Amino acid sequence: MADRITPRKEDFSQWYADIIQHAKLADQAPVRGCLVLRPNGYALWEVVQGELNKKFKETGHQNAYFPMFIPESFLNLEKDHVEGFAPQCAVVTHGGGKKLEEALIIRPTSETIINSMYSKWVKSYRDLPVLINQWANVCRWEMRTRPFLRTMEFLWQEGHTCHETEDEARKETLKMLDIYLGFVRDVFAIPVIPGRKTESEKFAGAEETYCLEAMMQDKKALQAATSHYFGQRFAKVFDIKFQDRNSQMQYVYQTSWGISWRILGALIMTHSDDQGLVLPPKAAPIPVVIVPILQKNKDNSEVLNVCNKMKEELMPHHRVLLDDRLEHSPGYKFNEYELTGIPLRIEVGPRDLANGICVLARRDGKKSQVKLSELIVRVNEELSDLQKSLYNAAYERLKNNTHLENSFSTFKEKIESESGFYQLHWCGSRACEDKVKDETKATIRCIPFAQIRETGKCIVCEKESTGRVIFAKNY
Amino acid sequence: MADRITPRKEDFSQWYADIIQHAKLADQAPVRGCLVLRPNGYALWEVVQGELNKKFKETGHQNAYFPMFIPESFLNLEKDHVEGFAPQCAVVTHGGGKKLEEALIIRPTSETIINSMYSKWVKSYRDLPVLINQWANVCRWEMRTRPFLRTMEFLWQEGHTCHETEDEARKETLKMLDIYLGFVRDVFAIPVIPGRKTESEKFAGAEETYCLEAMMQDKKALQAATSHYFGQRFAKVFDIKFQDRNSQMQYVYQTSWGISWRILGALIMTHSDDQGLVLPPKAAPIPVVIVPILQKNKDNSEVLNVCNKMKEELMPHHRVLLDDRLEHSPGYKFNEYELTGIPLRIEVGPRDLANGICVLARRDGKKSQVKLSELIVRVNEELSDLQKSLYNAAYERLKNNTHLENSFSTFKEKIESESGFYQLHWCGSRACEDKVKDETKATIRCIPFAQIRETGKCIVCEKESTGRVIFAKNY
Repeated sequence: MADRITPRKEDFSQWYADIIQHAKLADQAPVRGCLVLRPNGYALWEVVQGELNKKFKETGHQNAYFPMFIPESFLNLEKDHVEGFAPQCAVVTHGGGKKLEEALIIRPTSETIINSMYSKWVKSYRDLPVLINQWANVCRWEMRTRPFLRTMEFLWQEGHTCHETEDEARKETLKMLDIYLGFVRDVFAIPVIPGRKTESEKFAGAEETYCLEAMMQDKKALQAATSHYFGQRFAKVFDIKFQDRNSQMQYVYQTSWGISWRILGALIMTHSDDQGLVLPPKAAPIPVVIVPILQKNKDNSEVLNVCNKMKEELMPHHRVLLDDRLEHSPGYKFNEYELTGIPLRIEVGPRDLANGICVLARRDGKKSQVKLSELIVRVNEELSDLQKSLYNAAYERLKNNTHLENSFSTFKEKIESESGFYQLHWCGSRACEDKVKDETKATIRCIPFAQIRETGKCIVCEKESTGRVIFAKNY
Repeated sequence: MADRITPRKEDFSQWYADIIQHAKLADQAPVRGCLVLRPNGYALWEVVQGELNKKFKETGHQNAYFPMFIPESFLNLEKDHVEGFAPQCAVVTHGGGKKLEEALIIRPTSETIINSMYSKWVKSYRDLPVLINQWANVCRWEMRTRPFLRTMEFLWQEGHTCHETEDEARKETLKMLDIYLGFVRDVFAIPVIPGRKTESEKFAGAEETYCLEAMMQDKKALQAATSHYFGQRFAKVFDIKFQDRNSQMQYVYQTSWGISWRILGALIMTHSDDQGLVLPPKAAPIPVVIVPILQKNKDNSEVLNVCNKMKEELMPHHRVLLDDRLEHSPGYKFNEYELTGIPLRIEVGPRDLANGICVLARRDGKKSQVKLSELIVRVNEELSDLQKSLYNAAYERLKNNTHLENSFSTFKEKIESESGFYQLHWCGSRACEDKVKDETKATIRCIPFAQIRETGKCIVCEKESTGRVIFAKNY
């Protein structure tokens, strides 16, 4: 392990790796490209699970679990789907000491296995909608991996729904994108651009893919979540039919939507600094730590009593850690909680007590003295202010690094020297999209819902365009 | 799907399969031996997760996640472990379209992969204890599978801990067994016999295996949970060493413990009846359903108003479902909730309202009229009484079907005609244990903590024995 955290300016990608190690979020596994999610990292994943499960259930979804093994033949049923996923599959050829008659794929995503079950379960409009989600591990064979962002095995949730009508399914697709948006914005304090993917960036097998695009501190884009509308494509392949209200047989309309542990990568790269991880209070498994200033070989009972009382007072509002270890100095502890990103530190020493005060130190560096009698109010204020302030800083960055450009050559120069979101006119053709990618590595991240609609000329071919789309380099 | 549930007396194992289908708990997957856990089943698994996570965290454990892929060479490192698990492994030989240099095993259990990480993380006694748990899927290639009890892939949790001393590790092993016991007894209302496994029934690689043995309605035994003490066996293989308080290098002492979705099988086979699933109130995702007696083409607003008020009143205490669907008759609904095991049904019709009463119908058949003004108190009473009564019935069965036997021939006759727990004297030899198994299919389920300690003669060889052990046929 590196002794210090590499500064962002020196090497952003090393900084990212250092944060993950120093904050003990994850570690490299013995198998190439696999990640071990350590307790500090898993606690963040539990925040994702807890918040999203609440929203999913409020909107009528239920959790279930489908097998990780998919018969190889299933994957081949939908043409686009197999083209997209077959090259990334891990294949089980032997089981129980014998060669299998049909090889099994480890799910890279579960449309095929889940739809094969839906075709058994859905018979009538009374069985609809089917609103099912699963939390699972999936496997995609990646050549170049990066912690959280691109790993061979990863954790995610995938929702798969069936509906009576196209309209209902389309609404579901957007509703779920909106749930992700609320979570990412309000809990993880990450501003995002919601939009639609182009044909070439769509999920393999989808009619439409919607996404949330975030901007990291190095100004590269990161896709935070996706939601897909399938129409009846998989329904026809897997024969998911129902008797409708007029006794006619119809195919269902479907969606799927997912968020993976890459959102933890986005969290890290949005807020953290050269001192370590920075967690927005609502994303923090433990938002408050109390560090008593203890003195070795002295009676610390007065300070400890006050700290215990503080903890009791705060616990109904926030999860609080009281670090009363004697073997470590306050300085050691300050450093530890800076590394692990705890949003608010409360320092209490004997001198403070005499004055009826304590010190609140925010992870963003702001310090203040507060009266003990005002502790709860002030802790709530600081946490809520820190949450906003982290969001605002990220939002400013997103805004300040989103550029309008009309000339291809200027754009190429600019993106060469500085990443960012570039709002460019585009004619809609695959050829122009590919040309930009080949020459700049930037791709169309999305056609934003809040698209700048104006007549202009495609940045490549100069044909007419009716609105700008967002190009950026991405993770 | 069978139209009706096969009665237990007719065919217990078909009854079990029918309950699972009719209560929509699970379904057969397209891959042999794999199970789809449907929403009704997953909701029960969420009860297991929620209750155990609370207990695990209260006792200082943290969740983490380790990869499902284990290099084949890892498994070979511990002799007993590989002998136990190698024949059951699923093997990934190809990834990303290429043959792998080293095949990967899908975890049948995670001792090897987790210990390889612990050897990196543990350096000093200050890093101890390591108290980590993971919720994960694992894969064991089984030839004869049975829903929940024996499936190729299954969901479970596995805790893996490291300790400074043997004493601490042994205490942890028993502490976790006790947490399982509390959960299984108090939430799932399943009485169990805690005890120790014999050499031949131990977990592959463990020094000691402790277990909880439950009795199903067909009087066969089911192992509900296990907890293993490893001593330093894996620590030596994976070189997990720490500098102790005297600056000496020592190997850690380890434990692991797990419970899988087979506990859902135990829940089903302990309480359910020929009408469907029976859930103890604390195990039920929704313990109370309100069924208004609605009349088609009439104004039902009065009844519905009262039902909505009831729901509001009850919700702070219990999760309540109000089934106000007009398209289904009350009888249809009664049947549905009998199938799915909802512990308490509240029926409210216009005539009841006129009398200021409603009907409480317990899943075990007890019905009573209660005054609306006493609803909450009476609902709480009935739920708590039902919980106790289900436990007591299961406990009586366990007691009444546990027999003392001293003659091998009588025992063989008896167990041939009737399953049960047989308390037999045993000399401690593998040969006698195997002989009983060969001739009766019964195995030693455990040496109970509350062993009947008395001098006697081994039921097979008649050598001296100092106490009785429990023999039974098992799932």
